[in-house]
Amino acid sequence: MTHTTQSRTDSHEAAEILDEARAVVGPELRRAVDTLPAPIRRVARYHFGWEDAAGRVGGANGGKAVRPALVLAAVHALGGRPERALRSAAAVELTHNFTLLHDDVIDRDRTRRHRPTAWTVFGDADAILAGDALQSLAQQWLAEDPHPRAGAAVARLARCVIELCAGQHTDCALEDRAPTEVSLDECLTMAESKTGALLGCACALGALHADAEPDQVNALDAFGREAGLAFQLIDDIIGIWGDPSRTGKPAGADLTARKKSLPVVAALTSGTAAGAELAERYAGPPEPDELARTIALVEAAGGRDWAQAEAADRMGRAVQQLSLAVPDPARAGGLLSLAEFVTRRSY
Amino acid sequence: MTHTTQSRTDSHEAAEILDEARAVVGPELRRAVDTLPAPIRRVARYHFGWEDAAGRVGGANGGKAVRPALVLAAVHALGGRPERALRSAAAVELTHNFTLLHDDVIDRDRTRRHRPTAWTVFGDADAILAGDALQSLAQQWLAEDPHPRAGAAVARLARCVIELCAGQHTDCALEDRAPTEVSLDECLTMAESKTGALLGCACALGALHADAEPDQVNALDAFGREAGLAFQLIDDIIGIWGDPSRTGKPAGADLTARKKSLPVVAALTSGTAAGAELAERYAGPPEPDELARTIALVEAAGGRDWAQAEAADRMGRAVQQLSLAVPDPARAGGLLSLAEFVTRRSY
Repeated sequence: MTHTTQSRTDSHEAAEILDEARAVVGPELRRAVDTLPAPIRRVARYHFGWEDAAGRVGGANGGKAVRPALVLAAVHALGGRPERALRSAAAVELTHNFTLLHDDVIDRDRTRRHRPTAWTVFGDADAILAGDALQSLAQQWLAEDPHPRAGAAVARLARCVIELCAGQHTDCALEDRAPTEVSLDECLTMAESKTGALLGCACALGALHADAEPDQVNALDAFGREAGLAFQLIDDIIGIWGDPSRTGKPAGADLTARKKSLPVVAALTSGTAAGAELAERYAGPPEPDELARTIALVEAAGGRDWAQAEAADRMGRAVQQLSLAVPDPARAGGLLSLAEFVTRRSY
Repeated sequence: MTHTTQSRTDSHEAAEILDEARAVVGPELRRAVDTLPAPIRRVARYHFGWEDAAGRVGGANGGKAVRPALVLAAVHALGGRPERALRSAAAVELTHNFTLLHDDVIDRDRTRRHRPTAWTVFGDADAILAGDALQSLAQQWLAEDPHPRAGAAVARLARCVIELCAGQHTDCALEDRAPTEVSLDECLTMAESKTGALLGCACALGALHADAEPDQVNALDAFGREAGLAFQLIDDIIGIWGDPSRTGKPAGADLTARKKSLPVVAALTSGTAAGAELAERYAGPPEPDELARTIALVEAAGGRDWAQAEAADRMGRAVQQLSLAVPDPARAGGLLSLAEFVTRRSY
């Protein structure tokens, strides 16, 4: 089997795993959301893409379900029963969506998954409250799970949310600093907190559900964190060089907004002439028709190559952690496919 | 013993219970908050009044600790060991403060406990994130409690937070309506969700910690809810007729802001001439020097008398629920004192 064929097989498997996760976790997620009081439920159903702003049933895409799929694949990898871990999978997806609701308010982002964000439709108050309610719903759903490690899962998810909050704080703080006053290490730490932590927690909750040993739980957490960082690096690359019809955001929106994404910070700190020119541009507001030149500068300063290489390096570390947690390669296949899938998305 | 003497004794006892709760729960609360990542911890410590905006240790009052005191008194009432329920007590206080942080952002309130609110000092983003982190910290603190009903406590607190969110949503929605389009029942339901629910939950968590029967847990929840409504009614009365140096808010701030507090809605829906004049005023912005007349109208329309009577009625129901949950009057004394204390605050 050539490498290309292998990749295609993995990718196919990952798509199947994601479809399967959406199929089994979707109804559980809707069951959970439907227990919310009506006005909060409405905002949540809109945010998930199940309803339009007028409350009519809509068929928008509620996201890729990467995190629920990681929970279920982790349960499977450690010999548990994924069909019994739907509450854990739903809890992680509820938590992810709580953070999206709040991050959109904080970042004043107007578009998410090709649709207006909840705060632009319902106002800040209802978007904040719906996020708060989803955070609690996630904890409720986990805590009402009869499995014996549910308490440990609740505590772990809670600690993870605190890390997510710290990551979002640091993200805002870094955005407020001058382009030349941000280090790559700070940005990587921020990305690990903001993105890696919840992917790691998803894997850890799966491991807890399978009643794994503490070492395995922690190794799977580390696997998810490293894969999460690879995911974020690729997401940042897509944000600059990706197809807007796939990303759901206008082309180069992050650059126009002067976002300090990882490839940009790699370029800014590269010590190259292109990096210096980029820093100069980033210190001011975007000029008309500058986008192509800005993109070229990030690339010329090595931002794209660095991000690709760093993503590959993170994937290597992820695979290493995976082999520590799950010695049987046959059982680890699902998690590996998911990790490779998210770091190889077409763009 | 005369009624007056009895009242004084109760009041004295309640003050002692509150002091005791602050003394034992305060350190637990600080232990919890000190585990937060530094930038989040800073906002939290400011909000609690332990630090000033520059991070210097300050001696501001972090609140009356009514909710932690209810947890501990409920544990005692049902034969448990309050000294082991500090995590539950801290979790309830963390939850209360998460809602204060978010409510202040949503309501654009600039003053809390005589100090500038967190969002005015640190910005909306950090106030939202600190609130999110406190919500998770509360759940983590509960979930890491080794006692056997911890899972039930987590689920109950999570359901309570969802109700608090719905209450805050309704509060905002009612404020947006015309003065003549708000019913007293809606406002009472809103106040039960927004204030009663967490006081009820505090008592219920205490009952769970004491390993009480489900009927007792629910009766203590109902006790807290009814006492909470009485508390809110008195709070609303204080907001209009209270001493600003005690409330920490400018005199009549709620009236000037056209808030539909319970005495105001009772006046608006009274069918009296004073109520009609109040509705006319409330439909427009506050005029200079109108405050004394507005206060007089609420009073003339029976708003103050109704609120006093309703508070007394709610206290009656609270006492009834208390006797169902805790048959031994000797053990119920602490909870009763607390309930009577909050409905008899000097103003």
